[in-house]
Amino acid sequence: MTMEKVAKLFRVKPGKTVRIGQLPTNGSKFFKDLTDEDLKARARDYIKQNLEELTAAQELLYASDKWAVLVIFQAMDAAGKDGAIKHVMSGLNPQGCQVASFKRPSDEELDHTFLWRYWRHLPERGRLGIFNRSYYEETLVVRVHSKLLERQKLPPGKRGRKFWKKRWEDINAFEHHLARNGTVILKFFLNVSKQEQKQRFLDRLTQPDKHWKFSVADLEERGFWDDYMRAYEETLSVTSTPWAPWFVIPADHKWVARAAVSAIITQAIRSLPLSVPRPGKEQLALLRQAKAKLMRESSA
Amino acid sequence: MTMEKVAKLFRVKPGKTVRIGQLPTNGSKFFKDLTDEDLKARARDYIKQNLEELTAAQELLYASDKWAVLVIFQAMDAAGKDGAIKHVMSGLNPQGCQVASFKRPSDEELDHTFLWRYWRHLPERGRLGIFNRSYYEETLVVRVHSKLLERQKLPPGKRGRKFWKKRWEDINAFEHHLARNGTVILKFFLNVSKQEQKQRFLDRLTQPDKHWKFSVADLEERGFWDDYMRAYEETLSVTSTPWAPWFVIPADHKWVARAAVSAIITQAIRSLPLSVPRPGKEQLALLRQAKAKLMRESSA
Repeated sequence: MTMEKVAKLFRVKPGKTVRIGQLPTNGSKFFKDLTDEDLKARARDYIKQNLEELTAAQELLYASDKWAVLVIFQAMDAAGKDGAIKHVMSGLNPQGCQVASFKRPSDEELDHTFLWRYWRHLPERGRLGIFNRSYYEETLVVRVHSKLLERQKLPPGKRGRKFWKKRWEDINAFEHHLARNGTVILKFFLNVSKQEQKQRFLDRLTQPDKHWKFSVADLEERGFWDDYMRAYEETLSVTSTPWAPWFVIPADHKWVARAAVSAIITQAIRSLPLSVPRPGKEQLALLRQAKAKLMRESSA
Repeated sequence: MTMEKVAKLFRVKPGKTVRIGQLPTNGSKFFKDLTDEDLKARARDYIKQNLEELTAAQELLYASDKWAVLVIFQAMDAAGKDGAIKHVMSGLNPQGCQVASFKRPSDEELDHTFLWRYWRHLPERGRLGIFNRSYYEETLVVRVHSKLLERQKLPPGKRGRKFWKKRWEDINAFEHHLARNGTVILKFFLNVSKQEQKQRFLDRLTQPDKHWKFSVADLEERGFWDDYMRAYEETLSVTSTPWAPWFVIPADHKWVARAAVSAIITQAIRSLPLSVPRPGKEQLALLRQAKAKLMRESSA
């Protein structure tokens, strides 16, 4: 099976109810004839090849200056967000690429609506913008930990399903606005198994050069695994839209996940009707004049 | 007739088709028993009284720190936006009040979607924010002058009614999001007659101390009066919603317009369930401790 086909498999169809327990976390199962080592080597090669295509696509995106691309990563801790961003994106022209990581909101940010802090980081036309975590946290971590909602100082009211439904509606409308005005949106949920997360945490706790990646808070969050899965299921089911689809990527094999992400982003940019802007007749005449003026210059 | 009743009259009912030609520009007609001079004096007194109430309401808004108020002014040139902002708002605590005026977008702003530049200026909880012009220009001046739309570098597509319908939808969804999360939105169209605008332009051209207020571009825009009225009619008809109503204020008599605006804003803030935050038991204990600690201090 080719990587492109695998990538297609992972799209959440708009309107479909997501059951994360039924979706694969193990990407190697799609390549049963390969050993894990072979698969890793293949996926690496694939990303390398793809990087050339992605670089060319990004150049064209930048030159045509009409579309922006917003890529969102959401996942449980240690699922491989940072690694995916590093390996899929490094090599791209930094002038056309930006990454925003969202951690705890500031007091100023809490004084605005929950979408406010994300607006200023949206990629402008011609650019590829990556959100490492995003406004989806507003229906994930905020849902799992209701204390965070209290900090948002919202007007009084019930916080039942209706409340969250309004958040999803607002997010869908927000993304619809972006998409209608030239932003291509791709959303990735890196689906790691609870077992694989345990292994990665243990690696971080065992290998001194990985200690810095571990935070005790991560382990506490692991205790809320089932709550998170429920929050993800609802959020993904309601917010995978024709204009901003979710992809649930099996993430237990890092390189397979990265290859799938790389394929999906490249394909999305290449499917845009991009072209280098061609000068019109007037512009061409100006260019000819400029050239003639330069030619007439006495050599300095 | 009282000012409050007049104010109520001017609300555009959601779903109602607005015909500007049928709406009054002359506010004095609601007070037929008063001379223009008496009316002006009365309106001035009213604003003065109201300012005390508005100041108290704003203090409470600031202390309770849950709601924000966004006031939008749109109008043809010389309709009195600046004067209304000055006279209705001056005297308020500047710490809880902010005005953003929107002129031509920058290149950076044009590289984003049409709502992007307005987000950063939204008032935070506890504050009253005024937009002198707003994102509504994106369906008004941009609609009347299609060249401005070209500057926005949007992806290709038709620019017919469907295109503008999507803009209105995006605006309504955007305002719905704000309203759901604690922003009260009040939108004023200051409805000045073409005749009165001519008079005000002539004043600006005749009186040397008013010269600075006149720009030749204003006269050019006057040439597009009918196009603007059509754009306003459509926009107001579609975007007066239960969560963000439009008010069409007769603006030929400046003081009447200001009084109506003042009444509507004050009433809106006062109808919020505002209260100074009351400390809980724990907080009260901490306050008592703090007091005791201060009392124990040896006098410096």
